[in-house]
Amino acid sequence: MADAPKANAVVGQSGGPTGVINASLVGVIEEAAKHPQIENIYGAVHAVAGMVKDDFIDLKSISAETLELVAASPSSAIGTSRDKPDAEYCAKILEVFKKRNIRYFFYIGGNDSANTAHILNTMADEIDFDIRSFHIPKTVDNDLLVTDHCPGFGTAAKFEACALMGDDLDNRALPGVKIDVIMGRDAGFLTAATALGKQRDDDGPHLIYFPERPVSMEKFVADVDAVMTRLGRCVVTVSEGMRDADGVTWAKKLAEKAETDDHGNIQLSGTGALADFLSAQVKENLKVKRVRADTFGYLQRSFAGLQSEIDVDEARRCGREAVKLAMEHDNGSVAIKRIANGADYAVELFRTDLCNVAEHSKPMPDEFINDEGNGITDAFVEYAMPLAGELPKTEYLGARPRV
Amino acid sequence: MADAPKANAVVGQSGGPTGVINASLVGVIEEAAKHPQIENIYGAVHAVAGMVKDDFIDLKSISAETLELVAASPSSAIGTSRDKPDAEYCAKILEVFKKRNIRYFFYIGGNDSANTAHILNTMADEIDFDIRSFHIPKTVDNDLLVTDHCPGFGTAAKFEACALMGDDLDNRALPGVKIDVIMGRDAGFLTAATALGKQRDDDGPHLIYFPERPVSMEKFVADVDAVMTRLGRCVVTVSEGMRDADGVTWAKKLAEKAETDDHGNIQLSGTGALADFLSAQVKENLKVKRVRADTFGYLQRSFAGLQSEIDVDEARRCGREAVKLAMEHDNGSVAIKRIANGADYAVELFRTDLCNVAEHSKPMPDEFINDEGNGITDAFVEYAMPLAGELPKTEYLGARPRV
Repeated sequence: MADAPKANAVVGQSGGPTGVINASLVGVIEEAAKHPQIENIYGAVHAVAGMVKDDFIDLKSISAETLELVAASPSSAIGTSRDKPDAEYCAKILEVFKKRNIRYFFYIGGNDSANTAHILNTMADEIDFDIRSFHIPKTVDNDLLVTDHCPGFGTAAKFEACALMGDDLDNRALPGVKIDVIMGRDAGFLTAATALGKQRDDDGPHLIYFPERPVSMEKFVADVDAVMTRLGRCVVTVSEGMRDADGVTWAKKLAEKAETDDHGNIQLSGTGALADFLSAQVKENLKVKRVRADTFGYLQRSFAGLQSEIDVDEARRCGREAVKLAMEHDNGSVAIKRIANGADYAVELFRTDLCNVAEHSKPMPDEFINDEGNGITDAFVEYAMPLAGELPKTEYLGARPRV
Repeated sequence: MADAPKANAVVGQSGGPTGVINASLVGVIEEAAKHPQIENIYGAVHAVAGMVKDDFIDLKSISAETLELVAASPSSAIGTSRDKPDAEYCAKILEVFKKRNIRYFFYIGGNDSANTAHILNTMADEIDFDIRSFHIPKTVDNDLLVTDHCPGFGTAAKFEACALMGDDLDNRALPGVKIDVIMGRDAGFLTAATALGKQRDDDGPHLIYFPERPVSMEKFVADVDAVMTRLGRCVVTVSEGMRDADGVTWAKKLAEKAETDDHGNIQLSGTGALADFLSAQVKENLKVKRVRADTFGYLQRSFAGLQSEIDVDEARRCGREAVKLAMEHDNGSVAIKRIANGADYAVELFRTDLCNVAEHSKPMPDEFINDEGNGITDAFVEYAMPLAGELPKTEYLGARPRV
């Protein structure tokens, strides 16, 4: 292994923003400033789209005070992109890298971003242009391989927990069926996190549905009916990737139905479609007067002022770690290992090969989902609670003994 | 005026819950404990529905520690109801009051609740049963008459501001058109509050539509087009009560269209309908690749752990004030007068007649809406900012000079 070259670095933020992806960015910037091998640190505006267009900002000149504000801000402070670069796209990026003597590449994102880092590294090798290519994990979906969990998940999990704590109290105050549709097309971690704020035995969500466990509409309606009979109210959270018994997502089925029906302006494939569909199913099949449904949408990843402290800290450490690793290694992805849980919760960071993280994703482990496929286990709570951090406590009086 | 009778009190929470209606409840409980004229304090479980069924809990025995948790919890801690009692319903309530020697009635809610307090008071007078009937203002919509503003609004306004601060940064990171549908069927205060977190000149929301200003779909689309041309992105907030140029709400038009079309299971009148409709309008009429729409739903009034400090404090004071007033007056509604604004913000509470608040509601004053009817004025910011309280600061780097 050659010594770390004296050259410039580029950092990019890819894919959907999170509440702490900026903390990782700041981690990269502050650590890079400590290493004389890294001369300039360029921020790629809108990720690979900026790299291919030679569109960069200078990150070295930003004051420490501003960096703290950046680390506390949601969304991607230098812009992001959904582009998935192919070989031709990557070749153009490498030309820009050569022109600017960029030899360090730090990419904060999900499995697609790990893949981009992998492709860039491989192509650079082929043309004997040495770059050091590193992936820093980020995703609210928490579905990356190797790492124990992903920066971004804890903050989004805290949002879900606070949202459902409030929504469940609202449902106690005005009983009926409430359905909430949660982000996470392929992995149910975030939907599972809606249960983290439960304090009382009969707190909601009472039913939780994951992409990992297909469920027929008959079973869904019967589950709701059973909870209504038991409690007189029912709070349900479902993943946007909820699947019918045949394994096809309801989102896809609703979109296809919309095309077939040809309703003109109204798109049943819109944001509210799944929530409205499930709400209609309950109304039609059960004698429930009050049925409401919400789709939480982008608030889940962007709500300002809401961060999990542990999540911010780990995101920032992951950014720093990538730079440290780049002084010793040619490439890699930063991963988190949990070395202690519960009150003593602690993690270590380590390097894994890019190809171990690239492209593939991780579903929720079986041990986190109950046997019925409509709720979580204690194992999930033990896993996720330290990541979401401290939650508010609430009180409800309406169940007290009558006088 | 006779002396305040020695008797029992009842308190109820009516209508949609808010983030601070429990602070008002706690205000009533703690103040009532100071007055020997009030023997027991009963909590009416699910508001008038509990009163008519003789369904009460004892609020005097609750520990101070629990009361603090209640005051910090969203939603209505003793349950609420949407019932609007008629004369027969009220007669039954008065029978229960007589049976339990309830002579003090405190009702926390909106204009319907003020009306209920008014009817109960009038009917009690008619049968020579002296009760002291008080209304404590509450509504996220901020649309009550007489009072400067309503407890509940500040906390919901803070939610909207934080939501849009994050959503706007998200839109910067992934540009396109973003549309958010906000609570407030008849009054635009809460939709206006989405602008309170704006820090930079080009921060969103860039367009805001209120129930008070009907707008044609052509004008709406043209407005979005103009912002897209100027900034390359556009964040729009619209009230759920947004109206077509003819004054009819889009929600009503979409619901009617749904009935006419008879789509079976899919209800276009569902939660996401307006957001999806507006999104489709933009997609069809403008060449914008990325259009997204969210409906914020119940989170706006129930998100746990998010309160405006001033709002909590005022809500609690309003609860206390109602009890104090009941020692001197036969009936009334507590109202807020702003005696200083800005950094010196301060309020005084005063009594107004129930009939001044009952039934009617207040739209946004003209001076809070810009001439075009698609944004707010500085006057609104000056009015609303102290109520929402301190907001997080954010930073975005992607607009910095290029290197």
